[in-house]
Amino acid sequence: MATDLQQLTQALRDFAQARDWEQFHSPKNLASALSVEAAELLEHFQWLTEAQSRNLPADKRAEIGTEIADVFLYLLQLADKLGIDVVEAARSKMLVNARKYPAPPA
Amino acid sequence: MATDLQQLTQALRDFAQARDWEQFHSPKNLASALSVEAAELLEHFQWLTEAQSRNLPADKRAEIGTEIADVFLYLLQLADKLGIDVVEAARSKMLVNARKYPAPPA
Amino acid sequence: MATDLQQLTQALRDFAQARDWEQFHSPKNLASALSVEAAELLEHFQWLTEAQSRNLPADKRAEIGTEIADVFLYLLQLADKLGIDVVEAARSKMLVNARKYPAPPA
Amino acid sequence: MATDLQQLTQALRDFAQARDWEQFHSPKNLASALSVEAAELLEHFQWLTEAQSRNLPADKRAEIGTEIADVFLYLLQLADKLGIDVVEAARSKMLVNARKYPAPPA
Repeated sequence: MATDLQQLTQALRDFAQARDWEQFHSPKNLASALSVEAAELLEHFQWLTEAQSRNLPADKRAEIGTEIADVFLYLLQLADKLGIDVVEAARSKMLVNARKYPAPPA
Repeated sequence: MATDLQQLTQALRDFAQARDWEQFHSPKNLASALSVEAAELLEHFQWLTEAQSRNLPADKRAEIGTEIADVFLYLLQLADKLGIDVVEAARSKMLVNARKYPAPPA
Repeated sequence: MATDLQQLTQALRDFAQARDWEQFHSPKNLASALSVEAAELLEHFQWLTEAQSRNLPADKRAEIGTEIADVFLYLLQLADKLGIDVVEAARSKMLVNARKYPAPPA
Repeated sequence: MATDLQQLTQALRDFAQARDWEQFHSPKNLASALSVEAAELLEHFQWLTEAQSRNLPADKRAEIGTEIADVFLYLLQLADKLGIDVVEAARSKMLVNARKYPAPPA
């Protein structure tokens, strides 16, 4: 895994431990929290047209960046609990997708 | 952003372009797809106890790793469309969280 | 469909029309909004144990009732747009479920 | 609550009891399942344009009807566990919404 992600993962461990939050952080609960954050991200887009979503004003984009961070932080925590390397898992899945959806001839 | 994530992001761009999927990948639609994948991840846990979720069998963990990959791949694509660096955003959010939830004295 | 649900459905139509919200209420958008509301409902439970969720204090139960209402109102609106009778659909699905999951002998 | 919904609710109780599923049906778990079903409903729309979602072919509409039923069945079960009347809750919420979003003059 990238060093950046290792550092983030370690910082998340320390953060939870310092607050005694480990007890709440079962994989089941983290998967719930991740899903809730993904919905908060979606909420920003729900009444926009697709065209509007491609041209967000700067302040809206900043808010959405915060929601993306929330999703990412729970994703890293869940992956850490399960001993999964997100970059490795993503690369493997891209290979699966490439076989499942072959590109048409150029 | 970490080199690993830059490479993944570029691979995702190439993948979508080769299949002419850019037309479907509005931020609105990617946020929907991300939320759907997060729910597929949650589905694995919905009838488990928290204790069971902390002790998954290897095959279940592998399946969940694939779902984590799906969430991560849509997150990277959405962030890319919006020009957001997920690592940077995550670090900023951790600082906000540290102020919002101060750690109790050790 | 039950008279109660017909009245609610009509009230939702009138409400949207009076505010010129029909333009936002594509089935795609209503399905997004429904999913977001379902996540807001889930958020109330995400850090609770299952036992705690079976013994909610009255104020929490009232808050959750409001979220249940939000989910229901979007569900009725989406069903209305698609010409689906939710009670009829629910009955049909229960028959499917009964075949799929036969009850063990008593 | 409407007689139809009371009958559905009773049928859901009997169904769960006959399969000894009560143990899994904590409000926490039902809220998760509801959220997962709402995402399965959303999945049907994620790559459609809004215009396409307003003009679904009959077979797609039937599939979506089944997903709407799944959401509704979990909503009724969750409400039943919490002693919440969904029709009553929906009516109360509509009054709140009417105050929050006053209609413009006709």
